[in-house]
Amino acid sequence: MPTYRLDIEYDGTDWHGWQIQPDDPTVQGAIEIALKTALRQSVSITGSGRTDSGVHASGQVAHFSVEDEVDAHRLLASLNGLVPTSVAIRAVRQVHDDFHARFDARSRKYRYRIATRYIAIGAPYRWFVRPKPNFDVMNQAAALLLGTQNFSSFCRTASETENRVCTISEARWIASPDRMGDVDFIIQADRFLHGMVRAIVGTLLEIGHGKSTAESIKDVLTAEDRRAAGFAAPARGLSLEKVEYDEEGQ
Amino acid sequence: MPTYRLDIEYDGTDWHGWQIQPDDPTVQGAIEIALKTALRQSVSITGSGRTDSGVHASGQVAHFSVEDEVDAHRLLASLNGLVPTSVAIRAVRQVHDDFHARFDARSRKYRYRIATRYIAIGAPYRWFVRPKPNFDVMNQAAALLLGTQNFSSFCRTASETENRVCTISEARWIASPDRMGDVDFIIQADRFLHGMVRAIVGTLLEIGHGKSTAESIKDVLTAEDRRAAGFAAPARGLSLEKVEYDEEGQ
Repeated sequence: MPTYRLDIEYDGTDWHGWQIQPDDPTVQGAIEIALKTALRQSVSITGSGRTDSGVHASGQVAHFSVEDEVDAHRLLASLNGLVPTSVAIRAVRQVHDDFHARFDARSRKYRYRIATRYIAIGAPYRWFVRPKPNFDVMNQAAALLLGTQNFSSFCRTASETENRVCTISEARWIASPDRMGDVDFIIQADRFLHGMVRAIVGTLLEIGHGKSTAESIKDVLTAEDRRAAGFAAPARGLSLEKVEYDEEGQ
Repeated sequence: MPTYRLDIEYDGTDWHGWQIQPDDPTVQGAIEIALKTALRQSVSITGSGRTDSGVHASGQVAHFSVEDEVDAHRLLASLNGLVPTSVAIRAVRQVHDDFHARFDARSRKYRYRIATRYIAIGAPYRWFVRPKPNFDVMNQAAALLLGTQNFSSFCRTASETENRVCTISEARWIASPDRMGDVDFIIQADRFLHGMVRAIVGTLLEIGHGKSTAESIKDVLTAEDRRAAGFAAPARGLSLEKVEYDEEGQ
């Protein structure tokens, strides 16, 4: 069946996350409602992965399949007229029929914005952290997360995911390129466990505030126990930035 | 009297502009209330200039004078604890006693953010413009605004300002460096008239949409009549970015 890829941006503030739920408004639900109106048929979409309640996305990817081909250009315009303003469909394009937004994703990249100074613009997109943590030490610790390791200690306890091994290809704190935060944590991996980025950010901040050393993150990893890691940073600072695919899905 | 400079950022969405008003909440009013609590005395502040209702600022500057010296570092922390979260005091520092935020300002720089694509994050800080205008033509027109000219055609009719001559040192459309818009208009001048940036942006967009030529902006200027220019772009896209002073006030 003809299959289409959607590139999606959303301000997660008022949404109960990505994944459709019976009673609460979700981004997936909002897009499926818009698709039903635009295509005059019920269509299920599959995202690259869930994002939690309050988490933003600038590069979420989803796909759907339909019986008959649709005009992607027209669908893009009509969808954007139908979804709430906190959701934007950035692109609609036909991909090969077997494309799967979740299974074909090779990597995901998240950004976590924090502010250590008093700033007023962009408050819904960052977390205000005081006192200013030591980013050098946090970057030393972040470097120890690179490579293929078991991330059980950074996985929400309630998660039923059995495979806890992830390969992190990038993990570093950088000066924010925009005005929505002043320091951003960038992390890219082949896959992420539930609550993983927020648990990593919280743990790194405890290190940055001197509660433990950069080296201690090795012990956190080997513990394979969520209680060994730090608190979870709030959802508002987190944004799914990019999902990468092999050439065929791009 | 000891004089202090405040560097101020605000999300203007919910404020009735900068300047204090008897009945409506304004940024100046909010800061004066916080100062009264922090310093236990009524203090009037003077801004570099007004910003309209809904206009943002990342680099507003104000000053105040008090009988006795205050601890600028402590005042910074206490003010930020007292002002609403949509206002941030970026810096407090003592300047020479004669410093005047308005009269000593050598130039002001504004940014106007627009989105020509569907984006969801940062909606309070930009204006959504469709169809996509011709930015090359808009930049040709913008270049004709440079230099010292009479800007009566871009001044709100109700304005009582007699001197309508301004010197524009920068006026151009650039790709947005952040995710709050996708194309930004940057304009810097020694002074701005009431509603001037928004009238210029609206006029340039009409040119970008082919309603008139880039050259036509010369006729708009020589008309010295607000009706010769285009509509005023909405406040939400506008932000006061920077006010420059001679070294002594910096």
